[in-house]
Amino acid sequence: MLVGTVVGQVWATRKEETLGGLRLLVVQPYLLGGAETAETIVAVDTIGADTGERVLVVYGRAARHAIGKGHDIAFQSAIVAVVDGMDLGGRRVGQTAHDDE
Amino acid sequence: MLVGTVVGQVWATRKEETLGGLRLLVVQPYLLGGAETAETIVAVDTIGADTGERVLVVYGRAARHAIGKGHDIAFQSAIVAVVDGMDLGGRRVGQTAHDDE
Amino acid sequence: MLVGTVVGQVWATRKEETLGGLRLLVVQPYLLGGAETAETIVAVDTIGADTGERVLVVYGRAARHAIGKGHDIAFQSAIVAVVDGMDLGGRRVGQTAHDDE
Amino acid sequence: MLVGTVVGQVWATRKEETLGGLRLLVVQPYLLGGAETAETIVAVDTIGADTGERVLVVYGRAARHAIGKGHDIAFQSAIVAVVDGMDLGGRRVGQTAHDDE
Amino acid sequence: MLVGTVVGQVWATRKEETLGGLRLLVVQPYLLGGAETAETIVAVDTIGADTGERVLVVYGRAARHAIGKGHDIAFQSAIVAVVDGMDLGGRRVGQTAHDDE
Repeated sequence: MLVGTVVGQVWATRKEETLGGLRLLVVQPYLLGGAETAETIVAVDTIGADTGERVLVVYGRAARHAIGKGHDIAFQSAIVAVVDGMDLGGRRVGQTAHDDE
Repeated sequence: MLVGTVVGQVWATRKEETLGGLRLLVVQPYLLGGAETAETIVAVDTIGADTGERVLVVYGRAARHAIGKGHDIAFQSAIVAVVDGMDLGGRRVGQTAHDDE
Repeated sequence: MLVGTVVGQVWATRKEETLGGLRLLVVQPYLLGGAETAETIVAVDTIGADTGERVLVVYGRAARHAIGKGHDIAFQSAIVAVVDGMDLGGRRVGQTAHDDE
Repeated sequence: MLVGTVVGQVWATRKEETLGGLRLLVVQPYLLGGAETAETIVAVDTIGADTGERVLVVYGRAARHAIGKGHDIAFQSAIVAVVDGMDLGGRRVGQTAHDDE
Repeated sequence: MLVGTVVGQVWATRKEETLGGLRLLVVQPYLLGGAETAETIVAVDTIGADTGERVLVVYGRAARHAIGKGHDIAFQSAIVAVVDGMDLGGRRVGQTAHDDE
């Protein structure tokens, strides 16, 4: 339930077994007006998102639904959409920062 | 469980299939005393809210109930009311910033 | 699971139907040492709280239990107690700011 | 899932009935490096914690399990342990601030 | 659903009985660009993480799944992976701060 930008990927060999085969991306939440936060979220990619793309991240049951491996899984956040753009009061925010008007 | 102002809309073509047909709005949480936050929430519009209007946003099971497509859905936040106004200690906060006293 | 002060009420005509008849109050979380936050929470009043009173706010299943209309409801925060006072290391914090020692 | 210090107690006569008999403590989250937050959490004491003691606070289903009155209860945070100490990179943080090295 | 660094361990003798035998680690969330937060999370170690290692922390049902003692347990956060590294826009962030490029 937030928009963020994919800023990277996490690699992990030692992990809980239900995380096997999941692509884990690092997402930086979007802030209005060009502000930047240092916080990040790690979310399972369910949609084929790339670094730099703006995405929608959800949590909990919604994330488990999107991951599609049932509810007995050791992760609870997921990327469920790649954002084409946002219309913010007449200002167009694009799929990546390069597309912003 | 928070009041915020609708500041825009999110467009997404590549998305988890249960998001099809949902209108996704960007909401900026309301702060007391005229302060502004750069944070935003994306929530499914279930009520016909417009940009600039103050709305109530809920999460989790409450949001899924409002969306009305069951609990197997990849989203967990929703707009469930358009605020007519808030009475804050005698000060009237309106449906939009233009209506504030 | 937090203490806050009721700072106002929210009015909404256009709302999800399960919100009908609920009294929605605006609560400002309590901070130690006289600090003030601009953040607010909207919570269903289940106890008859008044503006200026300090209250306990809960979320999720606990809130739905307190609201008492079942779990198929589009809200997930509730006021479950009016605070008589808090004993903070010998300092008495009252039911309202006027009662603080 | 956080460590905090018990800084006081909450008294409430007007409260949702399932809160009867619960001891509600005010907890200030622990921050690294001696920083202090003004935020507080209210949690049900399930372990016999005293003011000044560092404790573990949990939320949601975990808290309801610890409270032990079933899931139909109007509270969702609980103190589940009194911390003997924390080993933070060679630095010992004690049960209370007086025990810190 | 966040990356953090294990900064220590919590010891507790007086605790809710379902916490018996669990190793509780203190995790400091990772921030972009070398920023540091004073906030910490306590999470059950399910993977054999060491102090200084970067790890993935999850909450709620995902954490209970990883802990593997069923859902009637008084904790709701867990370490589910030790991070080999993160690829952040060409910059490599390592398993520990010593491995960062």
